[in-house]
Amino acid sequence: MNYYIAVDVGGTQLRAACYPCGQLTYSKADRISTQYQSTTPLERLENLISSIWPGDGSVSAIGVAAPGPIDPFLGVIHKAPNIPGWVELPLRQHLEQRFKIPVALGNDANLAALGEWKYGAGIGHRHLVYLTISTGIGGGVIIDNRLLLGAHGGAAELGHITVLPDGPMCGCGLRGHLEAVAAGPAIARWVEQQLSNGVPSSLNKIAKPLTAREVGEAAKAGDSLAISALERAGTFIGSLLGDYLHIFNPSIVIIGGGVSKTGDLLLKPMQAAMEKHVYSPFYLDDLVLTTAALGDDVGLMGALALAASTVE
Amino acid sequence: MNYYIAVDVGGTQLRAACYPCGQLTYSKADRISTQYQSTTPLERLENLISSIWPGDGSVSAIGVAAPGPIDPFLGVIHKAPNIPGWVELPLRQHLEQRFKIPVALGNDANLAALGEWKYGAGIGHRHLVYLTISTGIGGGVIIDNRLLLGAHGGAAELGHITVLPDGPMCGCGLRGHLEAVAAGPAIARWVEQQLSNGVPSSLNKIAKPLTAREVGEAAKAGDSLAISALERAGTFIGSLLGDYLHIFNPSIVIIGGGVSKTGDLLLKPMQAAMEKHVYSPFYLDDLVLTTAALGDDVGLMGALALAASTVE
Repeated sequence: MNYYIAVDVGGTQLRAACYPCGQLTYSKADRISTQYQSTTPLERLENLISSIWPGDGSVSAIGVAAPGPIDPFLGVIHKAPNIPGWVELPLRQHLEQRFKIPVALGNDANLAALGEWKYGAGIGHRHLVYLTISTGIGGGVIIDNRLLLGAHGGAAELGHITVLPDGPMCGCGLRGHLEAVAAGPAIARWVEQQLSNGVPSSLNKIAKPLTAREVGEAAKAGDSLAISALERAGTFIGSLLGDYLHIFNPSIVIIGGGVSKTGDLLLKPMQAAMEKHVYSPFYLDDLVLTTAALGDDVGLMGALALAASTVE
Repeated sequence: MNYYIAVDVGGTQLRAACYPCGQLTYSKADRISTQYQSTTPLERLENLISSIWPGDGSVSAIGVAAPGPIDPFLGVIHKAPNIPGWVELPLRQHLEQRFKIPVALGNDANLAALGEWKYGAGIGHRHLVYLTISTGIGGGVIIDNRLLLGAHGGAAELGHITVLPDGPMCGCGLRGHLEAVAAGPAIARWVEQQLSNGVPSSLNKIAKPLTAREVGEAAKAGDSLAISALERAGTFIGSLLGDYLHIFNPSIVIIGGGVSKTGDLLLKPMQAAMEKHVYSPFYLDDLVLTTAALGDDVGLMGALALAASTVE
């Protein structure tokens, strides 16, 4: 039997799973901390892959989803946030030398889009925009059944687009990006500012710093400041989605990431703003706006889709 | 001998040219007014095509560049600005019935990008962003050697993106789009506002309404208000180009359209703003920023590229 191995690299944990070719359920999987005592993250990753290697067949390819700026053509990680030493790391080369099979590397948000397109909410769509809203905001785009990568793999950074000129500083160092006003930490930060301005809220009683999850829970319990915070974030996201409809004219928009689990309190204002920000109803014809289907396995599924694409 | 016929449809004039296959110089071409007395624009277009039909061979395909929202897959013009009656016009079907050969239809800005990529400033680039700045701002994008069209052909509307939330009204009915702050009429309008606020300028003496060309000439003569107007427009365009680098990661950005002929007074602030609005110098590696090469024939050359692509 032939297998693919899918790997999801994060700053906190490394996951790997072994899938029989043509199947979406893994036969073997494991997860470990990315950093632990004296072993390096690369050694830990290689050991993890070895530990789930199938005993009864051969592996056709390894797909790896990794955060941060990478070069998917060269298989190099430019800089992995929160993984010490992973700067200009030729990860593909390391893994191919170790395991002697083809290895493909992709940006995690790009691969989440690929996974949703191939196995999740986007099945059957040729033109897809995927946005993941969590600690940061990442994106992935499928155009005519192909993943948008750009000249050096840096395309589809859909969270690093100016939506509020001269707005708050983004983690990337520029101002007013969508990520700086609508990702989880930005939502929590805005609420804290309002609290310090004396706006009444049940969140006054919660220890600081706040999290977007706490804001989401307060909103569900009816707290008006928390509801406003989600409306504000949703409106920023939706307005930019309107622009993305003009740019990509997709047939589906998929929203993933932890913050999207807040549900309608975020998604309804998002949809309203998106619909308000297209200049012709033409862009909304047959358009599907939905949430991601693959859940916490989206990184593995994206890496699986990438591995499978190397031999298909 | 085999030929392609290229057609450039505008609200003011219709152009058509006949190119021997594989050649970039037409053997026969003509242009006429779009509207004249009792003939309809469609009759005039069909007569124009007949008038340049080659006598010594057959035509393999007709490519048509048309303004406004169109469906390139169906060959339908949804609405041509300034051409009365061209609403939901199945132009491809009309021309195929009349001439009995394949006809392909494309949005003029999209086809300008295709033309520049195939025959102009973008030769050899797999990932290209093209922006045309004139009465409006249109765009076209090449991704991995293919034209970005989207699900229904409405993609790459790169001028209809919000750059100044709650800014001036755009011709499309939404506020704060790039077109509403940086196209020719927007540049002229901003100068008129400054004049009415008492800002001194040599443009005070020019009859109103002003044109962007007059602003450009005053700027070249050293008028500081006119220079500021071009800097302002260039900065808006460049900031959005920075976002487009994050979205498309192209290897070349091409600026076309009448307003781009103003030269460095517009282009230098544009380039500075673009470079300031990328979060990593990575996006500027090997990036070419240049002006369009095809000049006034860009519409015909784009239509030629489209015609050729139908049989290649």
